[in-house]
Amino acid sequence: MPRMADIAPQGKAQEVFDLIKWDADDLVAVIAQEQTTGEVLMFAYANREAIQATLDTGVATYYSRSRQSLWVKGETSGFKQRIIEVRIDCDGDVLLYAVDAPGPACHQLRRSCFSHRVDSDGSVHTDKPVIE
Amino acid sequence: MPRMADIAPQGKAQEVFDLIKWDADDLVAVIAQEQTTGEVLMFAYANREAIQATLDTGVATYYSRSRQSLWVKGETSGFKQRIIEVRIDCDGDVLLYAVDAPGPACHQLRRSCFSHRVDSDGSVHTDKPVIE
Repeated sequence: MPRMADIAPQGKAQEVFDLIKWDADDLVAVIAQEQTTGEVLMFAYANREAIQATLDTGVATYYSRSRQSLWVKGETSGFKQRIIEVRIDCDGDVLLYAVDAPGPACHQLRRSCFSHRVDSDGSVHTDKPVIE
Repeated sequence: MPRMADIAPQGKAQEVFDLIKWDADDLVAVIAQEQTTGEVLMFAYANREAIQATLDTGVATYYSRSRQSLWVKGETSGFKQRIIEVRIDCDGDVLLYAVDAPGPACHQLRRSCFSHRVDSDGSVHTDKPVIE
């Protein structure tokens, strides 16, 4: 049951840039996931340049909205994310980077940024960091 | 290394609604993931009412931006997503619903909405549907 908004890939080089539904800032949302464990590591954004760099280098590259610049995750810490696969969703507004991520993906030194559990009463509980 | 933008949960009932950084439309992004396989199923949005319903009923509930209404995923198809865990990321702008999802999460009758692979030349290739 395809919908109007669904992308229709044709297998042509560079077509991903036309298929992506860019937001008002010419960015697209990116979910980074550890390929082996399936753990969702982080959520960020990419612009065209970041995606091109990701495809060219095989290293997960994002666009930092706060710094307004290209952002190779792990460039400072050394914990770069090696790309296993890039995927795009059915309506073209979210990318999925399946990566091999050696260290903490989160600036809080946790494996994942999703380090808080929400209980059914709406209370929130934080996991212990990997590195204290 | 906490940052200014990081949430600081205290384990109090209902605090998640204060910790969430709502967007301009009073929505928050939600990633749905199959708990057992780790597969990222879909990306959607929730408002306060949707999150409250999710926590109360244990059934993944979203806010449909196109229909502008609460959206119990699978209400029509019967493939509802049972919530195993709800998580929130370090800066409070994305939720993760870890679910047990019996059927296709995607309206294209695929397990996941991330059914298109992006190759290094920028070409896009679509997985076969689960149900043809």
